[in-house]
This record gives sequence, C-alpha cells and structure tokens, in this order.
Amino acid sequence: MKKIAIILAGSGVYDGSEIHEAVMSMYAIVKAGAEYGIFAPDIHQHHVINHLNGEEMKESRNVLIESARIARGNIQDLKNFDATQYDALIIPGGFGAAKNLCTFAFDGPDCEVHKGVEDAIKNMLSLHKPIGALCISPVILAKVIGDQVELTIGSDQATAEAIETMEGLHALKDHGEIAVDLKHKVVTTPCYMLDATIAQIADGAIHVVNKLIELSE
Amino acid sequence: MKKIAIILAGSGVYDGSEIHEAVMSMYAIVKAGAEYGIFAPDIHQHHVINHLNGEEMKESRNVLIESARIARGNIQDLKNFDATQYDALIIPGGFGAAKNLCTFAFDGPDCEVHKGVEDAIKNMLSLHKPIGALCISPVILAKVIGDQVELTIGSDQATAEAIETMEGLHALKDHGEIAVDLKHKVVTTPCYMLDATIAQIADGAIHVVNKLIELSE
Repeated sequence: MKKIAIILAGSGVYDGSEIHEAVMSMYAIVKAGAEYGIFAPDIHQHHVINHLNGEEMKESRNVLIESARIARGNIQDLKNFDATQYDALIIPGGFGAAKNLCTFAFDGPDCEVHKGVEDAIKNMLSLHKPIGALCISPVILAKVIGDQVELTIGSDQATAEAIETMEGLHALKDHGEIAVDLKHKVVTTPCYMLDATIAQIADGAIHVVNKLIELSE
Repeated sequence: MKKIAIILAGSGVYDGSEIHEAVMSMYAIVKAGAEYGIFAPDIHQHHVINHLNGEEMKESRNVLIESARIARGNIQDLKNFDATQYDALIIPGGFGAAKNLCTFAFDGPDCEVHKGVEDAIKNMLSLHKPIGALCISPVILAKVIGDQVELTIGSDQATAEAIETMEGLHALKDHGEIAVDLKHKVVTTPCYMLDATIAQIADGAIHVVNKLIELSE
C-alpha cells in the first residue's frame, strides 16, 4: 500500500492549513487505496486570526497542536519525518503554509522556508519521489527547488510573478486542473487560490493525489 | 436550489465539531447540487482540548469563532437561523456536539440542549422539514424529539441505551449506512462512532445528505 505524507501548518485558512484542502487530501489518498501519515512542525503559529471577523487575536497557538485537530491526534512532529518511509509528499494550502511553513506572506520571493519543511522536500527530491502542493503551497516548492520547476497557483498575477522570481515556471490552470513537472515529479493545483467550491477543492486534491501515486510507481 | 443548514459546535473532534464530518457534510451538499448555510451558537466552548495529547488546555475559546475556521468565515450566529429559509438541517458529530450543543457528555440522558439548537430542531420539525445527524449528534435529536424517533449511533451499547432512555429507538448500523425515520423525517449515520476511515465518513455524509434532499421534495 502506498504511503503519502501530508505536512500541515495549523488548522484554519487564515493562520493555518486550509481545512477543506487538508481533509480532501486525506480523503483522496484513502479513496485511491493509499494511506497517509500527517506531520507538522512543533513551532508557534505566526499569529492567531479570528476567522469570524478576520482580526488578530491576542493568543498564541502551536502549529503541531492545532494541526492535530485536523489529524484527530494522529500526527507526528515534522522532525520525525523520514522520506525513505513514504512514496510521496503533499502540502495543502492556507495562509499557514505561507506564514508558518515559510515567510512568503511577509517576504515574498525573499522568503525563508522552515528547515524541517525544506529538508522534507529535498529528501523526497533526492529519492526521486513525487511532491504535491495545493493553493499557495507551490511557492514553497519554487523557493526550495527553483530550477525552472513548473508550478501553478491558478492565475494570480502577483504570486505567479513571485514564483518566476524564485526561478520557478508558472502555468495558468483552472479549477481542478493540475500542473505536472515530470523532471522534478512535482504536481500542483490552484484550489482556493481561485474562488472555488468545496467540490472543486475535492477535484483538485483527487487529481493531485492520483498523479502522485502514478509518479511513484 | 435546495438549501441545507449545518450547525457546528467548534472545530476539532475532542472539544468541537469533528472536522472530517463537517467538511464531508459540506462536500456532500455541494456534490448533490445543493448549497449550505453554516451556523453555530455564540457561546464559550465547554473546554479546550490539546488534540495532540488529549489534555485540557488553560484556554477559553468561542464556539462560533472556532467553527468559523471550518466555514472559512462564512458562518452565522445560530440565533439568526430561520427554518423557513432552509430545506433541511444537518448536525455533524464530534464531542463538541455533546459538550457545547448539549450536555450529553456529562449528564447522559438527563442532558440539557442549547436553546438555539432545540429551537432550530423544533422549528424544522414543525415545518415537516428533514433533519440529519452524524456520529454522536443523534443523541440531541433523541432528547428534543423523543416520541420513539428511530436513530443510529452505530453499535455503542451505552449510547444506544441512553437514546432509548430518552425515548428514541436505536437501530444498529454499520459504516456508511443510514437510519431513516420517515415519520419525523430524521436521517442518521454512525461516522466516527465506529472506527472508520475518512472515506467511510464521506460515504455516511453523502448518504445522509442525499436522503435529506429526497425527503425535502
């Protein structure tokens, strides 16, 4: 049975992983007859956003502990991730990917990527294992991989330009469509970078996961 | 287009709504060509559980604000729920349903149901509109409806007995199966009351939602 690792960044679109994208990634994996292992870094969230009104809250939350809500407790510290144990890796989106897993939300193309996330990506690459990313998360792959890796974040002009500044290639894609870079075995889809329905999120996650499994044969 | 209301109880299986069940309810609704409106009561959570280790945290969180994470901010205070505007109602599970929407987790069959939740259920009933519940949430319907309403929470003996003490009838059901009470138009499924996969959660939610839509014709 294929095993796919998922890296989460908290729980909630504005300060963590986008919940629908994370859940649909898990769903797509199980539906495809594979299994998942979930990881998140044991770090403080950049901040906590009230998802009702969009304002910052005077609270402090931990990325691993909040990600555990999506994982129903079945999650590990990212420092324990071992690329030899997984056939593919997938990173759902949400602002947490751009605030906690890297600093793209603040620094754009000059962002730094969390060391554990960078190591996970580089270790999968060196083993020629496929990596998927949804929504805004492809910016992390652009930063770590560069090398004209082909990615999509949908059609947002500013983010597409940032990807090219980081030496990625941006491909315009619509709901549920995937960009596939065969050289690096990287598969990406826009999800909520477009104004999408939850059914379109499921489509995108399913297409990415099925391609990851195909590329891991 | 059919409109289905969803009542949430926070965000996370141990102190709020079970995230997969909530997300799969939304997915099932959109997949069926209907739309959803999400509601939650504006109250403090009973408590906050660290989902990594299961321990209580010294924090206070609000049910409406945390539920907004699952809803991506597209949520209303339950006090604004108007049964005339919806074709059906669905309540996903998770301990939050038994801790925040009612006190079943602490008081069993002697539980009290949050007034807004009780009103929502009674208003749907009086309009002969269907109501669905997943996982542990059928206990709320047993308490509010009684009248030998047929429900399932899967096969947990103690919970089944509690349902019968509240004058419900319990039906044994397996993964993805639904109990349908045609008199009260109530549809329930076990979800994570059984040791389920996320694909089985999707099956249960899809079967409940499709039957709700059928019963709302």
